[in-house]
Amino acid sequence: MVPHLVTAQNGPLLDLEKKILDSTPAIERWFRLEWQEHTPPFYCSVDLRNAGYKLAPVDTNLFPGGFNNLATEMLPLSVQAAMAAIDKYCPDARNLLLVPEVHTRNPSYLQNVARLMQIFRQTGLHVRLGSLDPDVTEPTPLALPDGNMLVVEPMVRSPNGRRVGLKDFDPCTILLNNDLSAGIPDILQNIHEQSLLPPLHAGWAIRRKRNHLVAYDEVAKKFGKLIDVDPWLVNPLHAQLDDANLSEAQGREALADQVAALMSKIKKKYKEYGMRDQKPWVIVKPDAGTYGMGVLTIKDASEIKDLSAQQLGRLSVIKDGVQVSGLVVQEGVPTHENIDGAVAEPVVYMVDRYVIGGFYRVHAERGIDQNLKAPGAQFVPLAFAQQHAVPDLKAKPGTAAPNRFYVYGVVARLGLLAASWELERTDPNPEVY
Amino acid sequence: MVPHLVTAQNGPLLDLEKKILDSTPAIERWFRLEWQEHTPPFYCSVDLRNAGYKLAPVDTNLFPGGFNNLATEMLPLSVQAAMAAIDKYCPDARNLLLVPEVHTRNPSYLQNVARLMQIFRQTGLHVRLGSLDPDVTEPTPLALPDGNMLVVEPMVRSPNGRRVGLKDFDPCTILLNNDLSAGIPDILQNIHEQSLLPPLHAGWAIRRKRNHLVAYDEVAKKFGKLIDVDPWLVNPLHAQLDDANLSEAQGREALADQVAALMSKIKKKYKEYGMRDQKPWVIVKPDAGTYGMGVLTIKDASEIKDLSAQQLGRLSVIKDGVQVSGLVVQEGVPTHENIDGAVAEPVVYMVDRYVIGGFYRVHAERGIDQNLKAPGAQFVPLAFAQQHAVPDLKAKPGTAAPNRFYVYGVVARLGLLAASWELERTDPNPEVY
Repeated sequence: MVPHLVTAQNGPLLDLEKKILDSTPAIERWFRLEWQEHTPPFYCSVDLRNAGYKLAPVDTNLFPGGFNNLATEMLPLSVQAAMAAIDKYCPDARNLLLVPEVHTRNPSYLQNVARLMQIFRQTGLHVRLGSLDPDVTEPTPLALPDGNMLVVEPMVRSPNGRRVGLKDFDPCTILLNNDLSAGIPDILQNIHEQSLLPPLHAGWAIRRKRNHLVAYDEVAKKFGKLIDVDPWLVNPLHAQLDDANLSEAQGREALADQVAALMSKIKKKYKEYGMRDQKPWVIVKPDAGTYGMGVLTIKDASEIKDLSAQQLGRLSVIKDGVQVSGLVVQEGVPTHENIDGAVAEPVVYMVDRYVIGGFYRVHAERGIDQNLKAPGAQFVPLAFAQQHAVPDLKAKPGTAAPNRFYVYGVVARLGLLAASWELERTDPNPEVY
Repeated sequence: MVPHLVTAQNGPLLDLEKKILDSTPAIERWFRLEWQEHTPPFYCSVDLRNAGYKLAPVDTNLFPGGFNNLATEMLPLSVQAAMAAIDKYCPDARNLLLVPEVHTRNPSYLQNVARLMQIFRQTGLHVRLGSLDPDVTEPTPLALPDGNMLVVEPMVRSPNGRRVGLKDFDPCTILLNNDLSAGIPDILQNIHEQSLLPPLHAGWAIRRKRNHLVAYDEVAKKFGKLIDVDPWLVNPLHAQLDDANLSEAQGREALADQVAALMSKIKKKYKEYGMRDQKPWVIVKPDAGTYGMGVLTIKDASEIKDLSAQQLGRLSVIKDGVQVSGLVVQEGVPTHENIDGAVAEPVVYMVDRYVIGGFYRVHAERGIDQNLKAPGAQFVPLAFAQQHAVPDLKAKPGTAAPNRFYVYGVVARLGLLAASWELERTDPNPEVY
């Protein structure tokens, strides 16, 4: 099944789909060569938005939850990819310590953790769960919706202080499924003898959106050149504001100027593609913000001066006692995919350099220009049912599910590659590599 | 669906299934470590026989056809595994030359070739077909059953004689899907600048069954020790006869002695497992023989003296003008799997070190002790439909399809590992590695 693409503006995308399918050998070889030079993140999920006239990543998550939303038929792909990843970091690994989010009583999140444990067991690892919750002082069972149990355990340092593990469990690899937005806990500092994945600077205690966007610009440009398409078709325009003191009129004006400038760039692009009726909008988000937090939708620069103190307050983030005031302004990309009348956006999962599945995030009460990461969102793994077929080169553009899914996989991997460059460039200890 | 296991003697196998599932992390880690030391064959298919009391590989094919019999849902696993394999041999590869069998007008075989081309295209390679048929002197189209076309082209040496390719196509890798049972053609000799996969000594012009069986003995022993099971549960007993001149009475007597000795070993094993009613039999095959050729089923050593000259003749093979008279005698393993009343044996496919799918070879007119590789055989890819689920650790032994398929995958990989050791040991130019 291909979700209905509810837009007349799908010409550029059908052209993009055709170009991507025709260029498959070149694209795959390019990725292969890039992965010779750069290390992919251990795992990653990318939210895409399909506007018909463009298809772009809008979020690149380096601590993906939601593995439970992938179709079970896709599990062997995850296992195979995880085998390749483990091979790279610790080929003789016996034990893996998985560190989940602290709010681990959410049943859906716990199922994600259980799914990850199942995947890593199949790669030949004993997997146990280490908790960053200071209240977890002894092994603590957590009930899964299916009646099974998970056990989270307090993490401990080895007697010489050099290793992290559990009381009777010495892992070779520590895999974070916790995005560290609460800061970097002491127990994760100065780990040198074990692989800590993803690295600490991938966590939201340190990560900044702008670094990703800058890397993505370069990736999109290279990709555009490779297959001869306008990089804008896979890349939202964006701008950044370094010192935005929004409590002062001057700061708000600077933001309004940035917004207005970006709006006019978007309009120019719309005009270039003959979309005269399309109304641009932008997304403003804190540079240091976590997943979905403090995201504002602005349809006109004049709205900035009318923002409430609360809305403005959410745009600045306190990290380790320091206010991070940088902002990112990004071209809004509507999602024109639609499942049973509800707005949908594809989410693509990758382990190492491999696409291992995906699903649609669907929200019946949200609009095409709204954030679907909100209460009421549903996940439709089955909509990706045919993702495991290979492309059909003879199908008419836009009609074959495997072709659409292949294109999603390519664009999602552009986000993955950008994340790899980003992590390389922001590594505080590059000599470790 | 789990094929019906039509035997009362399934106790040892259910025990084996349980042990394998319980030991998954240890087994997968062991494979992971072995693949650090040894290179897996590029691709491989393994025929298994499930007797209920044992589950063993009976053929390890290093030039697998039949990729078209795999369920299309499994293709992404093949693509992912092929990506890993290509990475190893020629990461910057752009072109792959695939060399199919010469009898390429068989529609089913052509579909296998088309499927392989599809897989390698998705890994980022331009794929073309080189023919070893001296009658192919120009690009020759071959019609596929689905209306598409393949084109085989004459292979040529580069002007300096150092590379092999097509007229305007210089491959980095040459992949043989031709088992070289007709001998090694000149055009494949002395290739040093390109990867030739599998290596020439994997072809039946050079390969000898005994080397594989000896390597498999060691693999099975290591595996038995690892999970504490009798290696016999995954390994047919066997013997070999070096100079068997069967045209003389002395040669036939020597063979009859070997058969009798092996029969008594098998009986002892049957007794150990309480299978007093089970009748042993053995398979006699030429050491240098190709796929299914000249295979004899012997139920009593006394049959040897009554064999016809024709039957005896098929047991000796002429290779490059030299008679190869070595024989292999192997414990017969009945297949007790049954699909809709027809005898079935699982065939498992691997690319690099990964299990990528499989199917059942089913033959309605053959018995449980007969070779199913015969006219009338059918392939049931759908019977493996649940192979892409991960094991269900809570299912009762013998009832869950994913568990049965996981066990198949483990035993097939024992054959893969043995093939890897075999190729290493029989490599005429080991310093190349």
